[in-house]
Amino acid sequence: MSKSVFYHAGCPVCVSAEQDLVSLIGTENISIVHVGENKEKVSEAERKGVKSVPALITPNGNILHINYGASIEDLKP
Amino acid sequence: MSKSVFYHAGCPVCVSAEQDLVSLIGTENISIVHVGENKEKVSEAERKGVKSVPALITPNGNILHINYGASIEDLKP
Repeated sequence: MSKSVFYHAGCPVCVSAEQDLVSLIGTENISIVHVGENKEKVSEAERKGVKSVPALITPNGNILHINYGASIEDLKP
Repeated sequence: MSKSVFYHAGCPVCVSAEQDLVSLIGTENISIVHVGENKEKVSEAERKGVKSVPALITPNGNILHINYGASIEDLKP
């Protein structure tokens, strides 16, 4: 299985969702991207269709917006 | 691992999220509850804290509201 990508911004909602997903999917199946610490990743996430964080992009490219931490708009440099 | 519970109402957003989660977590690790076909499950979901569907309750009781299909309010009998 190719990896899912989890985009987050370090918010409490993000951290909680990250722990749940890692536990459910397995840490080896998920790449974690902190868009708050890595601002060029904000545009990467937006290009892939992420509207808010936390969000998980599945191996087939579907986006799961999980709960709501912050809008991608609010994370732009 | 105890099972996660996926609450949905048969909407396209729900079906898509269900397929993604089953694929990620494994069908043996997830119970699927269709609150639209089983109205007493609406109050069960609400009691557990589900605000909208689709939603996943993890084995440790956390709720992941995934994308947005319908408010639990709109599903009440």
